[in-house]
Amino acid sequence: MTRSRFQHGLDELKEKLLRMGGLAEQAVQRGTDAYQARDPKLCQAVFAGEAAINTAQREIDDMALDLLAMQQPMAVDLRFILAVIKINADLERVGDQAVNVAERVVCLAELPASELAVDIPLMASTVNAMVRKALDAFISGRPDLAEQVLGMDDTVDDMNRDTFEYLTEQMRQDPSVTRQALNVLLISRNLERVADHATNIAEDVIFWIRGADGRHLVR
Amino acid sequence: MTRSRFQHGLDELKEKLLRMGGLAEQAVQRGTDAYQARDPKLCQAVFAGEAAINTAQREIDDMALDLLAMQQPMAVDLRFILAVIKINADLERVGDQAVNVAERVVCLAELPASELAVDIPLMASTVNAMVRKALDAFISGRPDLAEQVLGMDDTVDDMNRDTFEYLTEQMRQDPSVTRQALNVLLISRNLERVADHATNIAEDVIFWIRGADGRHLVR
Repeated sequence: MTRSRFQHGLDELKEKLLRMGGLAEQAVQRGTDAYQARDPKLCQAVFAGEAAINTAQREIDDMALDLLAMQQPMAVDLRFILAVIKINADLERVGDQAVNVAERVVCLAELPASELAVDIPLMASTVNAMVRKALDAFISGRPDLAEQVLGMDDTVDDMNRDTFEYLTEQMRQDPSVTRQALNVLLISRNLERVADHATNIAEDVIFWIRGADGRHLVR
Repeated sequence: MTRSRFQHGLDELKEKLLRMGGLAEQAVQRGTDAYQARDPKLCQAVFAGEAAINTAQREIDDMALDLLAMQQPMAVDLRFILAVIKINADLERVGDQAVNVAERVVCLAELPASELAVDIPLMASTVNAMVRKALDAFISGRPDLAEQVLGMDDTVDDMNRDTFEYLTEQMRQDPSVTRQALNVLLISRNLERVADHATNIAEDVIFWIRGADGRHLVR
């Protein structure tokens, strides 16, 4: 394989990873739409989408393996390919979190409606923005964008903590909303996990770009 | 680098990964001990251990990268090294879950004691056994052991679901135990995540051994 064919392979790998990111983001968005509408039918799209995400993950891993096997990569390419493999795994887990959200929405839809003042859509749009920004950082090779993602993670942690406190209080005051509140609490936690995956991606980007390990130093 | 030095490097990598597995398992055990004793002091060992786990992860990743860079690996070695990198990431996240458990124990220790009939130690020993078996499968190259781990995951999912139902009911009946029950519920979920990581490891082992992708087919 010539160097330019190898380079072409790397470009294709990057493109596939971006598409994978789009699928993961879409899954979170669909789960959130289903939450807002309390519509289990909208959850089906998330469940169906999981297979596509799993297939995309496998294709990316296989392609990364082929690239590693077919040419002795230079150190910089090696780090890039390893970053792709790790980011790929995190994106797949973002998809899993979206499935968890959708499962909770199915439970919620079976329960009597309850007024719980939790802004799940805001949290969802924040964590999706983190995933997008982390991928942007990777594609553009900009560690400053990755650093921004690490900062946003603190915001999401705060949102999740506030939600937790608020819902706990609601359950104590009115046990009849326990099930509803628990489902919302778990959705909040699932979204917080999405933020953790975005943070992992940002740390991998920093690791890849700087050649230093920012994973456990920056935060 | 000669082939035999490369082989020696692979052996060392395997040994480091086993030690990493031991650290992760120990963290879960310590978190559980802290839970049983409701002792926040025991949690400190988990928090302190996180740094050691992070360091171990970085060392393994660096070593894997060096091995990939220093010799054009054969396909079988390539798959092995990639499996190590993935398993390594899962073990680090097992450590993170142990930290989450310990954080919940700190919260629990500040609350009045409550009688909640949840067998967290049984769940913890089950998920730790899964991690150990998944690593055994990797070290011994035995897909049958990995398959057993996948089966155990269903058991843990059932335990977690039962715990969820039981604690929800407790909260409804007696709102004064809401906070305690929520913390126990989240510990149960953290342990269920450990089982998920063990499952990921088992799937990576199957992928590595069979050369086929068992990740989304076997379950």
